[in-house]
Amino acid sequence: MPQRPAFAPWLDDTNDVTATFLAAGQIPGLINLGGGLPDPCVWPVAEMAELASRAVTDHAAETLAYTPVTGIPDLRDLIAARFSEGDLHLTRDNVLIVAGGSQGLALTGNVLLEYGGRITSQSPAYLGALDTWRPQQPEYRHMRLERNDLDLPALMKDAQFAYTVPNFSNPTGRLVPTDIRHRLVEAAEQTGTWLIEDDPYGTLYYDGPPLPRLITLSAKGETPYNGPVIYMGTVSKELAPGLRIGWVIAAPNMIKALATAKQSADMCTSGLCQRMTHDAFATGLADRMLPGVIELYRTRRDALLAAMDTHLSDLFDWEKPSGGMFVWATARDASLDTNALMEVGLDHGVCISPSSVFDPEGRDHRSIRINFTLNPPDKLTEGIARLAKATRAMG
Amino acid sequence: MPQRPAFAPWLDDTNDVTATFLAAGQIPGLINLGGGLPDPCVWPVAEMAELASRAVTDHAAETLAYTPVTGIPDLRDLIAARFSEGDLHLTRDNVLIVAGGSQGLALTGNVLLEYGGRITSQSPAYLGALDTWRPQQPEYRHMRLERNDLDLPALMKDAQFAYTVPNFSNPTGRLVPTDIRHRLVEAAEQTGTWLIEDDPYGTLYYDGPPLPRLITLSAKGETPYNGPVIYMGTVSKELAPGLRIGWVIAAPNMIKALATAKQSADMCTSGLCQRMTHDAFATGLADRMLPGVIELYRTRRDALLAAMDTHLSDLFDWEKPSGGMFVWATARDASLDTNALMEVGLDHGVCISPSSVFDPEGRDHRSIRINFTLNPPDKLTEGIARLAKATRAMG
Repeated sequence: MPQRPAFAPWLDDTNDVTATFLAAGQIPGLINLGGGLPDPCVWPVAEMAELASRAVTDHAAETLAYTPVTGIPDLRDLIAARFSEGDLHLTRDNVLIVAGGSQGLALTGNVLLEYGGRITSQSPAYLGALDTWRPQQPEYRHMRLERNDLDLPALMKDAQFAYTVPNFSNPTGRLVPTDIRHRLVEAAEQTGTWLIEDDPYGTLYYDGPPLPRLITLSAKGETPYNGPVIYMGTVSKELAPGLRIGWVIAAPNMIKALATAKQSADMCTSGLCQRMTHDAFATGLADRMLPGVIELYRTRRDALLAAMDTHLSDLFDWEKPSGGMFVWATARDASLDTNALMEVGLDHGVCISPSSVFDPEGRDHRSIRINFTLNPPDKLTEGIARLAKATRAMG
Repeated sequence: MPQRPAFAPWLDDTNDVTATFLAAGQIPGLINLGGGLPDPCVWPVAEMAELASRAVTDHAAETLAYTPVTGIPDLRDLIAARFSEGDLHLTRDNVLIVAGGSQGLALTGNVLLEYGGRITSQSPAYLGALDTWRPQQPEYRHMRLERNDLDLPALMKDAQFAYTVPNFSNPTGRLVPTDIRHRLVEAAEQTGTWLIEDDPYGTLYYDGPPLPRLITLSAKGETPYNGPVIYMGTVSKELAPGLRIGWVIAAPNMIKALATAKQSADMCTSGLCQRMTHDAFATGLADRMLPGVIELYRTRRDALLAAMDTHLSDLFDWEKPSGGMFVWATARDASLDTNALMEVGLDHGVCISPSSVFDPEGRDHRSIRINFTLNPPDKLTEGIARLAKATRAMG
């Protein structure tokens, strides 16, 4: 019998670390510091059940039928109003509702990338973004935004788009300072490149007031907004990932192109989940939850950093993140292979993410990403003790 | 200021007829026979609201968290059990939960198609499938399954996959007879081609018992199933499209590849919508609804055909469909341009779909697709009277 047709070649290049995280969740006793998951204890279950029931009862046609490809108008209007500020004037035409932030990244790739297209990316970069653009086999240029010799116009020139996570980047947890934000926007305007501002952690500031968004800095007072920034937000971190609701905010012509790609990808997003998201914002539920979430995660970050000081200070260097979900730690020993450390860690009952998966070329083997939002302080401390033991076991 | 990077070229080739349908919904007084929508009156709103509330309350971690990429295990198991029959032995590893049937088609394209890949498709073909594969700019070979001189192995040879809708095809409403089903499966085995069985209308049989599925015919008793058929189902027609839940049933290696593509596309499908779907099947709600839905749509089909006999018999030829949602009518006058008829129809207060959108090359201008599920009999009759007037106005 003849062989069946082969799978497309990009599938061979896909790493399966995400699958390892998910599978790790099933190992009894394992402490999972590898993922990027919120703690389920923050979810207001009774209120969400009530929102779900009322969404179907009061909006049956909207929640049980196909919705418009672009999303339900009420939610688009709410997002436009919520993010408008200063010179940034958003209308419904600036907003596309998507099935979680990662779909926004995927659709942008569909709309802008041809095979072998060029992406200028903050480096290291979010694993899910690298995964989603893999089918187009892009060529990457790396922006290391903490470097003094940063020449942004040279890096962005001729790129289909630039990709950034200004607030508490995944994986490094770094906050891009305001002056670099201005320079990113200027370079995008100067080179004509689209500029993605991926912002899943934008509400998770633990130590100070939020810095201005790139999209706000790029607005010139026009209505509707028509600048180069493609902003991506999600309810996954501040409400619940299970809703699978995100939004893209961008110039109307980009929203129109993304809607065409969305229609081809899955027609439209669940009206039920869209209505629940609308109501969670409109009733103030999301805003009421936030202080508790921030307090919880700040305490956990501090517990993690204290444990790292105790157990890891001779093995790794790191910076204290002022928000988000992660600490990025780099081995003092340049020969440490953190891919191997991930495996040894699993044997010691702890899961971390190795830096290779955040590098499009897979070359960076010296750092690890540690999550602090999923586990309570005692588990974080025990997890770090195990990680120290695993690291020493490799020496 | 420099131009922003161009959009990918496939966007220019996308037709906007679907957008026209959706916009047509807003024209006051228009009778929409152009879409493929269910009638909202069939939805059991109170029961769905109860399912939604209980899903969150009883399964908070599952509905509010990320689910596994492949779907919640309970729903995968339920689908595996529901579709197993005779020699077809399905396990969870044969099932991927997706966000509506169209996502299954999109992911299959991502997994199997390279740029310019070859698809052998039942012709005319579902508009949404053509849209979803457009970014890969495939080359099409047309299978006209009603033709006597059909050489399926020659047509399928060297195709990445063959695409079929055996039950009440969109757009023609035709049922592929059992002998051709056997020949499709044999040709797929002989040529080694993957064979997509897209089955959104498989429960909508109005005049007789269902014919065997291609996936069942291709099973050889192995566990888990490992044949060439990629089966796609959805709750959009029998429960509610707003849930955006579908499933792909295929060999485990295909499910694994599709899961990788799914992870890149949107990470996972809403756990809430998955749990509601599970419970709608497990509690028997979906099966209890079905006889009423079938009765309603059968009555409407008969009303449409009666109106067509009265008003259109000198202008068009058609066959009576024994299920599904559509009647396909071909103009007696070979020079009639149904693209123009769609526009003239809108002026007369009726919307139909022109055949060009179901032809990958856009060449077929002689037929129309008429939907009978959305409107009650009096509206169907009035819509057909308007269509007759519009057609005569073109002469």
